[in-house]
Amino acid sequence: MANPILVEVTRGALVESVHRGAIAVADASGALKLALGDVTAPTYSRSSLKPMQAIPLVESGAIDAFGLSDEEIALACASHSGEPMHTERVAAWLTRLGLSESDLACGAHPSRYEPVAEAMIRAQLAPTRIFNNCSGKHTGFLTVARHWDVATHGYEHVDHPVQVAVAAVLKDLTGARDLKYGIDGCAAPNFATSVAEFATAAARMATPGALPSPRAAAAARIIGAMIRHPALMSGTGRACATLIRACNGQAAVKTGAEGFFGAWIPARGLGVAIKIDDGAGRAAETAMAAVLDQLGVLGDDPKARALLSAPVLNTRGATVGERRPSATLAALKIAD
Amino acid sequence: MANPILVEVTRGALVESVHRGAIAVADASGALKLALGDVTAPTYSRSSLKPMQAIPLVESGAIDAFGLSDEEIALACASHSGEPMHTERVAAWLTRLGLSESDLACGAHPSRYEPVAEAMIRAQLAPTRIFNNCSGKHTGFLTVARHWDVATHGYEHVDHPVQVAVAAVLKDLTGARDLKYGIDGCAAPNFATSVAEFATAAARMATPGALPSPRAAAAARIIGAMIRHPALMSGTGRACATLIRACNGQAAVKTGAEGFFGAWIPARGLGVAIKIDDGAGRAAETAMAAVLDQLGVLGDDPKARALLSAPVLNTRGATVGERRPSATLAALKIAD
Repeated sequence: MANPILVEVTRGALVESVHRGAIAVADASGALKLALGDVTAPTYSRSSLKPMQAIPLVESGAIDAFGLSDEEIALACASHSGEPMHTERVAAWLTRLGLSESDLACGAHPSRYEPVAEAMIRAQLAPTRIFNNCSGKHTGFLTVARHWDVATHGYEHVDHPVQVAVAAVLKDLTGARDLKYGIDGCAAPNFATSVAEFATAAARMATPGALPSPRAAAAARIIGAMIRHPALMSGTGRACATLIRACNGQAAVKTGAEGFFGAWIPARGLGVAIKIDDGAGRAAETAMAAVLDQLGVLGDDPKARALLSAPVLNTRGATVGERRPSATLAALKIAD
Repeated sequence: MANPILVEVTRGALVESVHRGAIAVADASGALKLALGDVTAPTYSRSSLKPMQAIPLVESGAIDAFGLSDEEIALACASHSGEPMHTERVAAWLTRLGLSESDLACGAHPSRYEPVAEAMIRAQLAPTRIFNNCSGKHTGFLTVARHWDVATHGYEHVDHPVQVAVAAVLKDLTGARDLKYGIDGCAAPNFATSVAEFATAAARMATPGALPSPRAAAAARIIGAMIRHPALMSGTGRACATLIRACNGQAAVKTGAEGFFGAWIPARGLGVAIKIDDGAGRAAETAMAAVLDQLGVLGDDPKARALLSAPVLNTRGATVGERRPSATLAALKIAD
């Protein structure tokens, strides 16, 4: 059966496009407070996985051993925009490891922050690996490899000790016995979970006492780092930063490519996972805003509420339609 | 009931995202050779409508009265990339009308051809209206207004004689009594049809004798102009140009925003319309390539066949997945 329509995009009097998907809201016991659509199919959480991929970095003590801070933890969780605040910190972090940009296994892409991208075009500077939105995650992997004194070369391979550790953490958090994986845009493995498993894992990270003590502390520190440094884990004007700020300390959220979106809600002891079937990020943003609103953590910030109901603009800047929650999503009731 | 999955995007061993939609293939009688999904729901064809919006330009004699050629007809049908071949011709065309870029009602956006967009950033030149992918369509509307000696100002309003003429043509071609409309990205009205109506209208344009004689000649000239000038009606490396060239004179195709794609197939007397529910252009391209292939007009061009089964690349250029027709679309049989 097809997943329900979660988000619709109108133009004039008609709905022009619709986005289907699945949403799971879980607590640390794995109980589903909301299960909309097929919440059991394995899917890639893509960059929404980063806060879980960062657990070995903190739990191993690597972050403290290298004298790093919550800023680097936020960067390890980031799909950053390649602004100076991101690239300068990642460069300094690599230096602290005795490594350099050439040790990163991710490919290059232009900065996602238009003023930086345009300035680089004007200066005839080609984007380099540090501008990859995942360069913080990769530097986090390198930090663990250095801390464990294992080879840094090949850290992105699924059988490297760092990736084996990430997979073990995920199996523990989700209870999954076997994890399929695909290769992410940045060349690192991305492990598949269902949205129910992801939401449960996020809830366990967000609930004191749900995990053994070193992992619980690592999870709390990761969620706290995202909440304290929303611009470092995304960028200027990005949906993650807007939503985290709007939640005012109650929740961290993290986008992923192809329409995934995850949330960690310590204020409620809940985790959220959303997968839009067709991979549309615009729909994942609206759906996440709707779920956070329903959970009572979104608050009144107009920029965040504008993600809930976003105008469709034409090239003259006139509003010609609307992106909004479907009737199903608008009527959502999440169990207490 | 949900429309069928037409296109799927894999990563590793899993299908990561899917695209649902509707496809109609019709002949000039309105008989549906293929009806997949809901082919009767009204939807916007967006820029796929341009070859129909160009009918008054040719049928009225305006194109000949101003000494214009098939190149300008192709530009009137274009979602062009804002390359010099496009903007220089539109500028010369406006001059010939005694008008200028400031008479265009469309907004500005950057060239879609990266070398031009980057060169303009380097030269600190802001994009202007002529770079709007619809500037040829708008200049076509202005040409009709000048030919009819009616106000050029306000030509984009739905009650202006040019738009009234477009709506009348569409009602004739589709048999629809009432046409809803929305405002397109370029500020012109876009009239809604079902995919069945669009496919029928395209088939009528593509079939000699299906229309009264001045309109039949206009339709044949428009389709011929797109086939002869694929780069002018799209741009370097664009899917429309690739598919038209691959069809080797047998068909013209035209993309639209939000996952619409239309085709005119004089070689078979058929019209095609595809709407991807979620608005994804990547899926519309793959679906159109599959339909053209099934109709036996796609040929062997590797660039066109690469739209059928397209690699998903990571930032290092490695293939990590595939965009491909779903089993439903791959097994498609279209009635003779």
